[in-house]
This record gives sequence, structure tokens and C-alpha cells, in this order.
Amino acid sequence: MRIAVIGTGMVGRALAARLAELGHDVVIGTRGVEETLARSDSDAMGNPPYSQWQHEHTNVRPEPFAEAGAHGELVLNATAGGASLQALAAVGAANLAGKVVVDVANPLDFSRGMPPRLSVANDDSLGEQIQRAFPDARVVKTLNTVNANVMVDPSRVPGAHAIFVAGDDGAAKETVKGLLMQLGWREGTIVDLGGIRAARGTEMFLPLWVALLGALGTADFNIAVVKA
Amino acid sequence: MRIAVIGTGMVGRALAARLAELGHDVVIGTRGVEETLARSDSDAMGNPPYSQWQHEHTNVRPEPFAEAGAHGELVLNATAGGASLQALAAVGAANLAGKVVVDVANPLDFSRGMPPRLSVANDDSLGEQIQRAFPDARVVKTLNTVNANVMVDPSRVPGAHAIFVAGDDGAAKETVKGLLMQLGWREGTIVDLGGIRAARGTEMFLPLWVALLGALGTADFNIAVVKA
Repeated sequence: MRIAVIGTGMVGRALAARLAELGHDVVIGTRGVEETLARSDSDAMGNPPYSQWQHEHTNVRPEPFAEAGAHGELVLNATAGGASLQALAAVGAANLAGKVVVDVANPLDFSRGMPPRLSVANDDSLGEQIQRAFPDARVVKTLNTVNANVMVDPSRVPGAHAIFVAGDDGAAKETVKGLLMQLGWREGTIVDLGGIRAARGTEMFLPLWVALLGALGTADFNIAVVKA
Repeated sequence: MRIAVIGTGMVGRALAARLAELGHDVVIGTRGVEETLARSDSDAMGNPPYSQWQHEHTNVRPEPFAEAGAHGELVLNATAGGASLQALAAVGAANLAGKVVVDVANPLDFSRGMPPRLSVANDDSLGEQIQRAFPDARVVKTLNTVNANVMVDPSRVPGAHAIFVAGDDGAAKETVKGLLMQLGWREGTIVDLGGIRAARGTEMFLPLWVALLGALGTADFNIAVVKA
């Protein structure tokens, strides 16, 4: 499938690399290709510059947002949550219309320090905001409840553990489930929470995720859903 | 132990009944004992009137809030989250001072319909509000991530699954862990999330819990934490 991964941070890189490895035709969207490639410093999190990653992933082509969007049959939002609406606007509504838009972002706000708060919560969610901003897109919220490494390799966490999907378009969710299974998520562990409104649930899980990160001392964890 | 369960709803009843069955000296606190016993209608959720439950649980004594608080060596807040601060004020700061106060409530607001929103989230939590309102109490947030039936009988959900504790007083958390183990929670599944601030995480889990209730069709579920 032709996939556009929007965002060149660690989440975008992890997803683009793995999806390309699986044989998809992947472009990675950025505001300015030259600028992104020119950066030579590590980011605030200590991640290596994009150019180094690009050098090791020649099967992923960087493109400006709009060109990336035009390329993708499926568009994957892996930008920082606070920048997602602006980035997707640059991708362009016409480039999102009718397409499956996979939203893996979290609306984290680090401006008041750690742990981050959510910039939208309770009465709304980033997933719903994206769906409202691009009503012709078929938005599916998923993968935002785990670390980027676990997203693309669920076997880092042993046994069965859950990944959630939420979206208003049933066929779009089926497409996303197929993609999740390619990434290694097992069918029985993919939990369909219903419409995009359930993105409130998976986004508001983040404060518990952050507390668990502190308690467990590793990001290689996830939750399983156990029922009677 | 002398335990005061504050709140006569389904959560308070479930906890009071089980703790009394375990041999604790349990009182259940209510605004007005006569009024509570006089109600003959089922509540909005279809639960039977308190008097019927009281008739079947003569080992639990109803008391006005302040008397209940005076009785308890440990005070358990099982009121509706929106009424918790007011109820605990009626119990009285002096009756909470120095004591372990177990907060199992969620700040659910049903005023805008279903699913409920949280009346406090993101930058604060009910657990923190209670700790700030009663600085001499030793508040421990726990059990608010599962249904009342699962709280008092975790074996309703098969296998290992998690229960969280958060609070600023380490000794208080140890007391609560002991109580959780009496209720059937296994030591290895009790996850200490750190200080009371982590109540934000467990309270903000509620929207995901509500979405899972819809997806699974049963309240007899819980999450397990799986790590590498």
C-alpha cells in the first residue's frame, strides 16, 4: 500500500521504517525536506538527527506534507499532538478526503513541565478534532496507548496485550486492523471501542501510562484487557 | 480493624459487606440514618433501597457521617465523586486526622448525559483535592479502576490483573495493600504508582473503562499490566 507517515519524530520514524520493511511504499511527510535533512543536532529527547536516520532508511522518501499526502492511499498522523491539526492542514483536506487517516498522536502539553498534561481532554479529543476538521477523512485512532517501539513490535512485551481502535468508519477500522496485524498485533488483542469519540478514553489513558512508566522503569509495557 | 465506610450506594454497600464478612468492625456513614432507612424506592440505577440491604447485613451499623468517622481507625470514601468533599467535611477533619483515608471514588459528572465526563481532570484529581482539603489525613487512592463487584472479589475476573495504589504516605499505602490482599488482590498485582498525584492517572482511566464496558458488554473486567 502507498502510505504517507506525517511527522519525522521517533514515532514517525519507527512506523515508516517498519512499514517500509513490510513492503509498503512509504513516504514520510515533513514541513520542509531541506530543513529537516539539514538539522544536525540531536533533539530535546536525545534522539539522533533525522538525516542520520534517513541515511539508514533509503527505502523511505521524505516529501513535503502536501506531496506526501497526495502519495498516500493511507495517511498516518505521527506528529506531536499539539501540532497535528496544523500539519494535517498542510497535508491538505483534498489529500485526506476518502482516505483512511490513522491517528496515533497524543495531545501532550509539556509547557508546564513533567508529567505532561493533555491539551484536550474530557469533553473532546484530538481524534475527534481531526475527524471534525477533515470530515471527508476516515479517521481511526489507534496505537497511541503504547511507546513507538511497542507499536511496531508488540512482541517486545510478552504474552497477550491490547491495542485499541476507535473510528466512525467500519471499513476504515478493518483496514487498520489488517495493518496492525502486519505489525504483529494479534487479532484477538485488537479491541474495537466503537466510534471516534472513544479516542477520549485512549488519550486520557496517557496520565496512567506515564505513571506506569515511572513505576515500572521501562517503556516496554502495555495493558491487557481481562474479562470474565 | 474499625472501619468507617462513607456512602450507602452500591460501592459503599459492597465494601462494607465484604469487610464485615472478613471480620472487621464496620460502620457505614450516611447524612441521615433515619432518612436513609426510610427510603423505600429503588435508585436511578435500579438498585434496591438501602433498608433492604441493611436488613440482610445486620453486622454493619449505619451511623451519621461524624459518628462513623469517629468510629473508624480507617475511613473509606465510597461516596459519589461529586459529593465526596462535602461528605468528608461532614465526617469532620478531626475524625480524619492521622487516619488512613481510602478514596475509591471517581469524579463522574452525569449532568451532560452518558458517557459521564470527569468533573476534575488533567491538572488535578479528586484524590488530590481530598488530600489538600484534609492535610492531616493519609489519603490513598485505590480500587477506583474496577466495578464494585470486582473491588471486593477480584476472582470474578480470571487470572492476574492489576489494582493501583497512589498516596503520599508510604505506611498508609502498606496498610491499604494489606486490606487489598484481604479482599483477594494478590501482592504481585498491586501496583504502587507513587504519590497521590498519580490519582490523575487512575481517575482519567475512567473514560477508557466506560468504552471497554460498552465493547465487552460486562463490568466483570479489568486490565493487567504486562512488562518486558
